[in-house]
Amino acid sequence: MANIGIAGATGAVGIEILNVLARKEIPVGELKLFSSARSAGKKQATPFGEHILEEFSLDACENLDIIFLAVGGDFSREYAPQLAEKGITVIDNSSAFRYDENIPLVVPSINAEAIGNSKIIANPNCTTAILAMALYPIYKEFGLKKLIVSTYQATSGAGNPGMQELLDESKNYLDGKPVGNNIFAHPIPFNLIPHIDVPQENDYTKEEMKVTWETHKIFNDNSFPISCTAVRIPTLRAHSETIVIETEKNIDENGGIEKIRELLQQSSGVHLQDDIRNNIYPMPLNASEVYDVQVGRIRKNLVFGDFGLEFFVCGDQLLRGAALNSVEIAEVVLSER
Amino acid sequence: MANIGIAGATGAVGIEILNVLARKEIPVGELKLFSSARSAGKKQATPFGEHILEEFSLDACENLDIIFLAVGGDFSREYAPQLAEKGITVIDNSSAFRYDENIPLVVPSINAEAIGNSKIIANPNCTTAILAMALYPIYKEFGLKKLIVSTYQATSGAGNPGMQELLDESKNYLDGKPVGNNIFAHPIPFNLIPHIDVPQENDYTKEEMKVTWETHKIFNDNSFPISCTAVRIPTLRAHSETIVIETEKNIDENGGIEKIRELLQQSSGVHLQDDIRNNIYPMPLNASEVYDVQVGRIRKNLVFGDFGLEFFVCGDQLLRGAALNSVEIAEVVLSER
Repeated sequence: MANIGIAGATGAVGIEILNVLARKEIPVGELKLFSSARSAGKKQATPFGEHILEEFSLDACENLDIIFLAVGGDFSREYAPQLAEKGITVIDNSSAFRYDENIPLVVPSINAEAIGNSKIIANPNCTTAILAMALYPIYKEFGLKKLIVSTYQATSGAGNPGMQELLDESKNYLDGKPVGNNIFAHPIPFNLIPHIDVPQENDYTKEEMKVTWETHKIFNDNSFPISCTAVRIPTLRAHSETIVIETEKNIDENGGIEKIRELLQQSSGVHLQDDIRNNIYPMPLNASEVYDVQVGRIRKNLVFGDFGLEFFVCGDQLLRGAALNSVEIAEVVLSER
Repeated sequence: MANIGIAGATGAVGIEILNVLARKEIPVGELKLFSSARSAGKKQATPFGEHILEEFSLDACENLDIIFLAVGGDFSREYAPQLAEKGITVIDNSSAFRYDENIPLVVPSINAEAIGNSKIIANPNCTTAILAMALYPIYKEFGLKKLIVSTYQATSGAGNPGMQELLDESKNYLDGKPVGNNIFAHPIPFNLIPHIDVPQENDYTKEEMKVTWETHKIFNDNSFPISCTAVRIPTLRAHSETIVIETEKNIDENGGIEKIRELLQQSSGVHLQDDIRNNIYPMPLNASEVYDVQVGRIRKNLVFGDFGLEFFVCGDQLLRGAALNSVEIAEVVLSER
């Protein structure tokens, strides 16, 4: 049995962590759900029965084995080191520690071994986690020289308030009422916003650079350049991405597209949806609320010749992009106790 | 004065052709509005007053100088040659003649001279026209080695019924009712569909290949490879695109990003929206129902070094992608009479 805490238990990611813990039948002993002071004392229905929300304190964590942090970077920066010092394994969903060379950044099916004895483990950015699941099997077999990504990101990236804003403001739009925005920089219904997170010095956004930084770190290889444009679109909870790569090895001479399909079919956590003639390809409609990352529209890229590949992925932002990946990290930690 | 006909006058593109003709104060003499047999006899309000819809016939076109075809490829293939034989200039919005080497494919600010004495002139695919407006000034100055496009295409690409399906089915979704699809292969509200037009032998869709074929033809240069993923998203009438290019000339050594901005600022039909720190970038919200193609998020691409550029464009699909471009072709034809 493991005593488990969740900071941010009422948020979109926190709720999914509870669901995944239950679905995976993780043997949960004590369960502590931490929320804002405002919600503390309220009851929350969970797959483990009704629990009373608590305000976070280090003392309240005393008996925990693992704590999931699904709050914000500032919270993680303040508390993660203190929790780790108490011997609690911290699985952090924020970007606070992802670029710290002493902290492992983990997608378990790719680099579980990076966890080692670390007491703080960073969960990657959602876009990167979804991308990595589909890209890694290809990278392993064919190598990578270039990676170009364009994203189609759901409002769940901004949590429940983001999804709610899309629904509420879409309704306003359809009712002919003024359409506002509070969570997003502009109204999101029937619109898109090519701006996620803050701009960096190179005019890429932080969200775009996360894909570069984190893919390199997870693959433990920064030899291939990466470029990304990250775009928010009016969908709810699955991120999609167009992916163009140049490989090291000649694809045609090493099994061609059929070999790529075979690799992906054999990869756990990936679901091939690649039959456009029967209208089958990755879509948020089918990729939402499921664990596997969908991959399809696989074809030779027309720009990089026999070394070029182009495909489309779609994955649940709250699951593969956050909760599922976090719980899979916990499974590795628990299996090694 | 020019006598003008429109086949498909009640469609989304036909209506915009009427609006653009009026806004540009084209001296319209006789005006013939052709519709399906079902609508013939009905009245249609236009900026030129109320007109009675007619069923199309070659005889009814007798006095026309120019006819816009905004119907489908089959109609164009059947009637365009016969209309041209009567001396009528045919401006065709379908893809029927775009790849015919004897028929010019025209974006007037780029290749107006291609019109020559041709009586049939093809209007490009919407995605290509929007892309070409932003890309051509950069191509002229820096040359092009590679072009990689990902699209975010609006439902207007499927005409009024496409837009109506998005609105109606979004309402159903929000009301908790079943969400259907008739125009699109799958339900479009809060979803996306990486499948526009029919798949080709190389597993690209025809929509994706149009970007390749048509950009090469409009630029009169097929030396640079092009690859595209075309995705339908739940927006109404503006298409967006991420564009990654490798140039012939070193960008940094030839004025850098500032030079690119300057080129675009000086290009007619292009509106620079490139200030992410003030939340300014191309979006359907601002690019809809305006003539200019918006360009922003301009930055050095991280994959192609000093020869790499990445940017984002957004343009009204019905205007720059169809009606506006068609009327601009007509303007060239009329100016040369």
